[in-house]
Amino acid sequence: MPGFHRLIDLPEEQVSDKITRRVLSGDKAMITWWSVKAGAYAPPHSHPHEQIFWVLEGRLEFTLNGETRICGPGDMGVVPGGVVYANRFLEDSETIEVFGPPREDFLGVAPSMAAFR
Amino acid sequence: MPGFHRLIDLPEEQVSDKITRRVLSGDKAMITWWSVKAGAYAPPHSHPHEQIFWVLEGRLEFTLNGETRICGPGDMGVVPGGVVYANRFLEDSETIEVFGPPREDFLGVAPSMAAFR
Repeated sequence: MPGFHRLIDLPEEQVSDKITRRVLSGDKAMITWWSVKAGAYAPPHSHPHEQIFWVLEGRLEFTLNGETRICGPGDMGVVPGGVVYANRFLEDSETIEVFGPPREDFLGVAPSMAAFR
Repeated sequence: MPGFHRLIDLPEEQVSDKITRRVLSGDKAMITWWSVKAGAYAPPHSHPHEQIFWVLEGRLEFTLNGETRICGPGDMGVVPGGVVYANRFLEDSETIEVFGPPREDFLGVAPSMAAFR
């Protein structure tokens, strides 16, 4: 997706009843914008892609490599590839996640978020 | 920099009289937060790292592969590695840039932004 874009023009994908996502990807990295309702939960899982998250609004419980923290605006973290993490959204939240390399499963037509409930 | 972080705790590096930067890096990708005063200018340049930018606040003129656009909040773009770009900040601005792979020259102790004036 080289070139100029506008966040508002990126398709907003309905991932579940509580989660929508926008995606902007290059070949090496990807930014994803998440709008998540309170109560959404991702049980412990991992993926080979490195992930950097940044909480813009809201509040969630993030468990990373066995350590659990309550994260709010301005909180962030680096999840190395293969490391187990989980999160539970305590409030309606807005977050971004950067993946390196891009999550190829986020580039398909159909939502692919089996880990989210 | 695996694990939890807070944006406010990341060192704010004075890159020039008009530019400060915060950096959070993994092994595959890096997020950088930029506070830039009106008048800062980066002449045409390129780097092998792919870059994705997102304007949070302010206004700048971004030239990407020969096309110039005025970018404001919500505007963004993907700059493939090796592609020439330039930018001129028209207002005090807040932006983020994601690099894949990480800019190793942003991880040193000393600021390294010869391209910026």
